[in-house]
Amino acid sequence: MTAMRSWGFSKGHGTSNDFVLLKDRTNSTPLCAEDVRFLCDRHRGIGADGVIRAVKAEFLPEWHGDPSLWFMDYRNADGSIAQMCGNGLRVFARYLLDEDYVNEKDIQVATRAGTKSVRELNDGRFRADLGPLEVSEPRTAVRLAAAHYEAVHVDVGNPHAVVFLDSAAELDALDLTGLPQFDSDAYPEGANLEFVWAQEPRALRMRVHERGSGETLSCGTGVVASAAAQLGRLGESGRVDVTVPGGELSVDIDGSHAFLTGPAVIVATGTVYLPDLPRP
Amino acid sequence: MTAMRSWGFSKGHGTSNDFVLLKDRTNSTPLCAEDVRFLCDRHRGIGADGVIRAVKAEFLPEWHGDPSLWFMDYRNADGSIAQMCGNGLRVFARYLLDEDYVNEKDIQVATRAGTKSVRELNDGRFRADLGPLEVSEPRTAVRLAAAHYEAVHVDVGNPHAVVFLDSAAELDALDLTGLPQFDSDAYPEGANLEFVWAQEPRALRMRVHERGSGETLSCGTGVVASAAAQLGRLGESGRVDVTVPGGELSVDIDGSHAFLTGPAVIVATGTVYLPDLPRP
Repeated sequence: MTAMRSWGFSKGHGTSNDFVLLKDRTNSTPLCAEDVRFLCDRHRGIGADGVIRAVKAEFLPEWHGDPSLWFMDYRNADGSIAQMCGNGLRVFARYLLDEDYVNEKDIQVATRAGTKSVRELNDGRFRADLGPLEVSEPRTAVRLAAAHYEAVHVDVGNPHAVVFLDSAAELDALDLTGLPQFDSDAYPEGANLEFVWAQEPRALRMRVHERGSGETLSCGTGVVASAAAQLGRLGESGRVDVTVPGGELSVDIDGSHAFLTGPAVIVATGTVYLPDLPRP
Repeated sequence: MTAMRSWGFSKGHGTSNDFVLLKDRTNSTPLCAEDVRFLCDRHRGIGADGVIRAVKAEFLPEWHGDPSLWFMDYRNADGSIAQMCGNGLRVFARYLLDEDYVNEKDIQVATRAGTKSVRELNDGRFRADLGPLEVSEPRTAVRLAAAHYEAVHVDVGNPHAVVFLDSAAELDALDLTGLPQFDSDAYPEGANLEFVWAQEPRALRMRVHERGSGETLSCGTGVVASAAAQLGRLGESGRVDVTVPGGELSVDIDGSHAFLTGPAVIVATGTVYLPDLPRP
């Protein structure tokens, strides 16, 4: 038997976008890419779209905001760092409440994209203020497989390219297993790519290719980006409902601020046994 | 908040064939298909190829063997019942040892395919006696996608159809996402389907479509069936190494008895929160 490292964890999901959550209050166990990949491995590890490490902000030298907040250290399944994750934010709030790390339904969360507010609603869903949006013109070009698409560039703290399709059939038929190619001036670090069909003006269906993860069942910031692009087309503001393969979400856009509402569930808690890393 | 049921669980894998393990000593919580599908759901649940419930055999009215054994109640990810699972048997032994439910490295396990012996080796791997094999002639026909194959029928406590291919390229190119079709006289309840390429006479590469789960990274009884079919072709007995997408296994066949050797790992332990089932 080799010695093993063991960590406490929770597993949760928001509209089937799933996460392994770890507590590291004093920032003493920064994540390495190998450990993230192990935790997200769906057969050899626990399995998730990403890992969220909870760190008290006072222990982060790079954080200059309120030191009493919890910082959401989000990683994609491939081990890369991400600024933010909309579904992850709700699941992180659910986790902080379940573990009694916060005691109020109005929660401020420190993220790489700044401080975000999340509130638990009376129906058990969470409503997150994802902050200011930036919808760019002119449009940008995206390539996937052999096809070219015109996309709307939306920044929700992380970069998105939103493509509108003409029919449900076109959306259902898409093969999102390949790697999309973006305009490298618009997206120097890549982007998340959303394909949207407007079933009604205020009711969208969406599929997403997430940077670092491939196609996922849901992407919160992608849902917000899609709603913002649709409201831009309508020249309106207000609410848009978005159905993703993993569930139902609602977006409210008020001026340039976006709110994302949806479910957040903790499925399991326990201890994970990590393999020893090879020593250099 | 709705009330929730919570169960203790472990998650483990053998060559990436992964399982959720539950203890139900007194057989007081039989599994229903909905719960198995929830536990095996890789986004909304924990995620696994199957569920194994550990029940003390004395509490099973249908068991007429040694009542002091642990019974391995194995379910496929779709909720269906399976007689046996070769990788699951090693992981079950690892679980019984880790949890101190057994205290000796030689473990007898009660299964729907009878009593099976598993032993922990000094290198940490497990060696399971999967018991008598039955390799049938004449051969049987299998259809997958548009292609027809000739297969060898092997019974390892559960039914298998083994197809030999001529090259690694042919093995790599197979699309196993469809539903295979079997001769319903030979396989009244369906079968597991193995595709094998003999890299060397005693070194096989294999991919598998498991009944009730689709393509998996490994299938222990499928590995044994493939080795037995290969030894049948050679007219020999002894050891065959088999590489599956999830790892490496060894099979020893002595007369009509088969032994399967490979790794078994427990990755996590904890508590899972099951959603309330809809009441009729």
